[in-house]
Amino acid sequence: MKDTKVILDENEIPKYFYNILPDLPEPLAPPLNPLTQEPISPKDLEVIFPKELIRQEMSEEHKIKIPDEVLDALIRMGRPSPLFRATNLEKFLKTPAKIYFKHEGLNPCGSHKPNTAIAQAYYNAKEGTEVLSTETGAGQWGSALSYSCLFFGLKCKVFMVRISFDQKPYRKVIMNTYGAEVYASPSTETDYGRTVLKRSPETPGSLGIAISEAIEIAAKNENTKYALGSVLNHVMLHQTIIGQEVQKQLNMIEETPDILIGCVGGGSNFAGFSFPFIKDKIQGNLNAEFIAVEPTSCPTLTEGKYIYDHGDSAGMTPLLKMYSLGKDFIPPSIHAGGLRYHGMAPTISLLAKHKLITPEAYTQEEIFDAAKVFAKTEGIIPAPESAHAIKSAIVHALKCRKNNESKTIVFNLSGHGLLDLGAY
Amino acid sequence: MKDTKVILDENEIPKYFYNILPDLPEPLAPPLNPLTQEPISPKDLEVIFPKELIRQEMSEEHKIKIPDEVLDALIRMGRPSPLFRATNLEKFLKTPAKIYFKHEGLNPCGSHKPNTAIAQAYYNAKEGTEVLSTETGAGQWGSALSYSCLFFGLKCKVFMVRISFDQKPYRKVIMNTYGAEVYASPSTETDYGRTVLKRSPETPGSLGIAISEAIEIAAKNENTKYALGSVLNHVMLHQTIIGQEVQKQLNMIEETPDILIGCVGGGSNFAGFSFPFIKDKIQGNLNAEFIAVEPTSCPTLTEGKYIYDHGDSAGMTPLLKMYSLGKDFIPPSIHAGGLRYHGMAPTISLLAKHKLITPEAYTQEEIFDAAKVFAKTEGIIPAPESAHAIKSAIVHALKCRKNNESKTIVFNLSGHGLLDLGAY
Repeated sequence: MKDTKVILDENEIPKYFYNILPDLPEPLAPPLNPLTQEPISPKDLEVIFPKELIRQEMSEEHKIKIPDEVLDALIRMGRPSPLFRATNLEKFLKTPAKIYFKHEGLNPCGSHKPNTAIAQAYYNAKEGTEVLSTETGAGQWGSALSYSCLFFGLKCKVFMVRISFDQKPYRKVIMNTYGAEVYASPSTETDYGRTVLKRSPETPGSLGIAISEAIEIAAKNENTKYALGSVLNHVMLHQTIIGQEVQKQLNMIEETPDILIGCVGGGSNFAGFSFPFIKDKIQGNLNAEFIAVEPTSCPTLTEGKYIYDHGDSAGMTPLLKMYSLGKDFIPPSIHAGGLRYHGMAPTISLLAKHKLITPEAYTQEEIFDAAKVFAKTEGIIPAPESAHAIKSAIVHALKCRKNNESKTIVFNLSGHGLLDLGAY
Repeated sequence: MKDTKVILDENEIPKYFYNILPDLPEPLAPPLNPLTQEPISPKDLEVIFPKELIRQEMSEEHKIKIPDEVLDALIRMGRPSPLFRATNLEKFLKTPAKIYFKHEGLNPCGSHKPNTAIAQAYYNAKEGTEVLSTETGAGQWGSALSYSCLFFGLKCKVFMVRISFDQKPYRKVIMNTYGAEVYASPSTETDYGRTVLKRSPETPGSLGIAISEAIEIAAKNENTKYALGSVLNHVMLHQTIIGQEVQKQLNMIEETPDILIGCVGGGSNFAGFSFPFIKDKIQGNLNAEFIAVEPTSCPTLTEGKYIYDHGDSAGMTPLLKMYSLGKDFIPPSIHAGGLRYHGMAPTISLLAKHKLITPEAYTQEEIFDAAKVFAKTEGIIPAPESAHAIKSAIVHALKCRKNNESKTIVFNLSGHGLLDLGAY
């Protein structure tokens, strides 16, 4: 089995988060204060984030040690996660390419999201936070944060985009079962939510609106901090345990990747999977292609502009330099709720600007066809988000067939689709 | 982490199925031909089962070697599975007892069912079967068989109890996504289905009816065999990889179980988990209690009679000596669909008769309360079936608190509840 399922022993779990900031081809443009348009100071962020996460957000250290309590929780939750070779998919596609995938869905939350949720809950608890507020789209992030709050004794309040709240009641059940309070956003819990509801009572909501609501209650309550599941540097770096594990796993079977693929919404699973490899590329030790896959209906990297924009709709967050469709963009109600975000992580945006990352976009129909092929060959029903990465892997594997090239393709399966079966 | 999550290396997966038949306290009463009431011959079963499974059904060997192809598929699917210590649950209950659980839900099907589905699909494919027919209640078994048929090139036809077909559309989606044909039972596909529909068009169906339908199409089609997900000896023995892994895992941490707990419908997860330990008990090497937990609404072991009865409603299956509520019993529509069966595995029935197994029964309300406590402490949302085992573990842990006894309690978490969230 060694070549088709590569497992790491639990003591081989990465002990450090990898921070890409000092390795970027140019310094990241600083976040700006929304009121003054001046670079923001760490102090400004202390209303909503604990100090250690602010430190990580701006750190220039290459490596940040993972606390033992976080490692224990990650291991208990299911890490290290296995790397599989998709031999049945290869056969079905009649491709000379080798296709590998990292499976991030084998934990109680079913996605990569707990990797950062656990770390964020830990640092908050350590600094005395009592309540964590957050937003969620499809509900993966909200479930992961609710789950993580359990273990560090925090309360969790989740603003869930209304359309998902209505269409995906099961993820709400998960959050409630974990003890979280869940509000359909826009809600009547916040000033901003009430304002939006007054203006457009029938709005399906958006991640941008939900973020504004979650930040508002963090800003207004002493014991409450805010947690974001993507976009920010500290989130990306928590996720790098994915890519570091993949590096070890590929080394074990003496493989070098030619193409690395992940789906992108805010960018966290892609960043976590690819950054450790991008470091090697920047340093001239790896000649690989990096592909970030998004839905054609929310084409941030393929059609957005590289500008300073807000992360939320109300304009409460700092301005971030990133690819964006504009903070008021309301994406269509596609099933891949995790990819319906107007912006993109500044780190990923910068790498895309420097052509170190190639974006691709596919339609909902294309990605569900790919998901079904994957389920029928590999026996795993993927999340609609992850199906974007599968689609791209298939496209590149077929290109290999046409050109008779035996490339090594590795993609990140960010989660399973058992909570999205209505979409199939 | 060694004490709270115990992992086996993949090369430590058990290499043999354990067969309890030669170790039973008295020989198992033979299955009887439904027409002649005479003991059935292997030949009689060849219409619906492949020869190797019939041989296993009646084997007196202690150990049956697991084929390499089956081991590979089991490893790829997720074995060996981890054993966890439920430290948060212990703290919550303020019990001096230690509580461990084996997690059988960490695979694409989310339950223990693929352990035997993979083996059955393999042996069928090897003997030239082209189509496997089966029944399913809640859909766990049907998903597992559909999944397993994929890997050995078999078609799969599933008769799904109508009430589950209507109430649990998602498991049907899984089976369809894996390429299986799924019929609501009673269906118009079989003579027996049509007869039942004529008599009671509004029937919610039952496992007994669905079994009759699945057997009928196997009996009538040369290329089609039938697969059963529980009750029979060969199913129980395939599942013993669960208990054999738990034995190794408890040895690693130098623990000896005092109480072993599993839920019972037809009996397969309980048997697989407990039989390797029951062997030790029978041979005088282990002094432990074995608890089989069922719903009060389908109280086969606690209120059924130990009689010869049919496994199906039409009376097409051999008569088995077992605890039964009668083949025409239509259980109420509880959420634990996997525990709605009128009979009980003959091996388990015999052990219960000899008081080697103690049955317990709990109400739906009790088991959901236990499930919620488990989710809030351990972060895992259990299947309603598995919640029966959790409830019993809690009862015994609280008894330990009262008596100030630090017993070691181990239960089998047969599956996760992500496809049963509607019930929460």
